[in-house]
Amino acid sequence: MTTDAYLADCRARLAFDLLSNTWNAVLLWVLRDGPARPGELRERIGGISPKVLTETLRRLEFNGLVERHAFAEAPPRVEYELTALGRTLLGPIDAFGAWAFEHGDEVMAAQDRNSR
Amino acid sequence: MTTDAYLADCRARLAFDLLSNTWNAVLLWVLRDGPARPGELRERIGGISPKVLTETLRRLEFNGLVERHAFAEAPPRVEYELTALGRTLLGPIDAFGAWAFEHGDEVMAAQDRNSR
Repeated sequence: MTTDAYLADCRARLAFDLLSNTWNAVLLWVLRDGPARPGELRERIGGISPKVLTETLRRLEFNGLVERHAFAEAPPRVEYELTALGRTLLGPIDAFGAWAFEHGDEVMAAQDRNSR
Repeated sequence: MTTDAYLADCRARLAFDLLSNTWNAVLLWVLRDGPARPGELRERIGGISPKVLTETLRRLEFNGLVERHAFAEAPPRVEYELTALGRTLLGPIDAFGAWAFEHGDEVMAAQDRNSR
């Protein structure tokens, strides 16, 4: 891929825009082990409001990355699950997670140096 | 990495926050072939204002990912270059670019379906 192709390609912009909301990546990541109910997701993530969780799930659903399943039970049960497409993003997300794990301290040290 | 470790780890959040600004990733990517002057960067990227370019370069510098070199010439010359740390992000960024190249159409098709 040449620079031009990369930058002109709206698919590349799309990928970064998907990640431009940190919650998107976090949500995809916590769904990697299988379907989960909204309450479970809130618990696993911590620090996400019900409103933001709902908005994020709708956004991921809109982009074809997550599927909503509603079960006609009493009380009604709703679960969210990664689609096959959503699952393909786990690799790239993991690459960033691994990077953060390895190099996060260096970034924080730089911030520290540059804040003085 | 367990879910909890992943989400509680502020290094992981840091990585996603770095990417939460699309321009950060784009800038790092166009710097991958070596040092460049601001004018060259604007040309390679297209559609970035001088103001946004400067802000992005400062942010990357602050995070230790990019280095600024000023040459005492007439007229004065300024170049920006990836640091060793900045270079380590090229792999993960490329993983996303490759993902977008392969799956971007599917995301756009989903958006299309869900917009009807």
